Amino acid sequence: MERKKIAIVGVGLIGGSLAIQLHEKKISSRLIGVDSSKIHQQQAMDRELVDEIMELENAIASSDVIILAIPVDTLVKLLPGVLNKVDKQIVIDLGSTKSQSINAVKDHPKRGRYVATHPMWGTEYSGPQAAVRGAYENKAVIICNADESDADALEWTKAMYKKIGMRLLEMEAKAHDLHAAYVSHISHITSFALANTVLEKEKEQQAIFELASAGFESTVRLAKSNPAMWVPIFMQNKENVLDVLNEHIEQLKKFRETIEKGNKEGLKELIEDANKIRRIIK
Amino acid sequence: MERKKIAIVGVGLIGGSLAIQLHEKKISSRLIGVDSSKIHQQQAMDRELVDEIMELENAIASSDVIILAIPVDTLVKLLPGVLNKVDKQIVIDLGSTKSQSINAVKDHPKRGRYVATHPMWGTEYSGPQAAVRGAYENKAVIICNADESDADALEWTKAMYKKIGMRLLEMEAKAHDLHAAYVSHISHITSFALANTVLEKEKEQQAIFELASAGFESTVRLAKSNPAMWVPIFMQNKENVLDVLNEHIEQLKKFRETIEKGNKEGLKELIEDANKIRRIIK
Repeated sequence: MERKKIAIVGVGLIGGSLAIQLHEKKISSRLIGVDSSKIHQQQAMDRELVDEIMELENAIASSDVIILAIPVDTLVKLLPGVLNKVDKQIVIDLGSTKSQSINAVKDHPKRGRYVATHPMWGTEYSGPQAAVRGAYENKAVIICNADESDADALEWTKAMYKKIGMRLLEMEAKAHDLHAAYVSHISHITSFALANTVLEKEKEQQAIFELASAGFESTVRLAKSNPAMWVPIFMQNKENVLDVLNEHIEQLKKFRETIEKGNKEGLKELIEDANKIRRIIK
Repeated sequence: MERKKIAIVGVGLIGGSLAIQLHEKKISSRLIGVDSSKIHQQQAMDRELVDEIMELENAIASSDVIILAIPVDTLVKLLPGVLNKVDKQIVIDLGSTKSQSINAVKDHPKRGRYVATHPMWGTEYSGPQAAVRGAYENKAVIICNADESDADALEWTKAMYKKIGMRLLEMEAKAHDLHAAYVSHISHITSFALANTVLEKEKEQQAIFELASAGFESTVRLAKSNPAMWVPIFMQNKENVLDVLNEHIEQLKKFRETIEKGNKEGLKELIEDANKIRRIIK
């Protein structure tokens, strides 16, 4: 794989962790960082996540590949303008929702240069300081509406993800957004709401601190996630998220009802149903 | 600490993992296993979790300490009969709820021999095969209504937990059951309900399997937990669990409302509130 000059737009958790991989796996010859935050620019340079910082326009002109690792609301606004400025460059986004960004450029003359992807990796932390080595490895990456991308752009993008150890899947944007609501977005809402429940009801913070078990930490971990990333995801994927959220509230009400009624058999059945997740997760 | 003959009643995840620690930390001179399941008896012997298997009555007569690691419904039924048979032995339970077991023997002439504890450790697996080394270390253990236990029984129990590396806390049973609802029981309900939500709505199990991120696995992990353990916990701690569950459903409805209305600012505030869990968890 010939090394390329790569611009990373958004050098936070997602972009910064990818930058580390692009360098370590010898995919990049040079890494250019773009970020609207001066503090993040400085942190990305201090940690040597990128070789230099540029303004977006210069970064596009100076790169072979432009990777957009920014919140999905900013992405939808920025993407048409980025495609306006590209010639033969490849533009890849890493957003957690896919329909709106793809729709935003579906008739753009440079649509073919854009590859819409969602690598299924993240942590509850954010910013350049949260970037880690070894990210993305052994996880799935979904490429959406692959047939709308130019063959060379698609091929390079796939080769890049393979080289950092990801499993490739292809999907239409609509199907992606539906599945993402189930396997990612609802988990975050559950976790945020759980944190608020406990913080609201449990006034003795010392008790939470002392008693919190590994189970609690595991379910509430995602509640530390960044609103700048998640508000736009929930808003863009509103219909699917509401659909799954309504179902989740119904499921919780079933637990409430069996407990209220002292219906042990019914509660046992609900838990046995839930245990079937074993078939899927590990 | 003088080594003692210890009977473990219930040689599954909780009792089996404790047996490993009691042996490795040189707290036990001999370990006697009691279990109603022939399969678990055999597995506990095969894994050498205990030295021998006995019936409960013989085990009580042959031991200095009897540790009850059984579901909390069985515990409440069994505990008075166990105390009927003890002389100078110490009886310790490890149940996740504390009010009912303590109430069941509060006027028992041998009440002093009983120490009610809840070590805050567990995994989503169950049975002797799930027992692991190094369990309980660096976790909290709550001793409830300590003043109702005889001084020697309390002292030995504390020394045992310290020797396996646990942090000791004392609490009244009522307060324990309230806090446990917040920091443990609600997490399990959330996780069970999340699994049911996804299994109900997401008919393409292959999609869950392929796309499930670390975040999803983390929030849904507890959904693999055993109904034999959890049904009695939820039933015994019904009032507290329902109270927290109602609050949790209200919190989820707040997320639903802001997303439905496209209220970005409101959604951001809910997430920022949830982020405050950072102050408490790591």
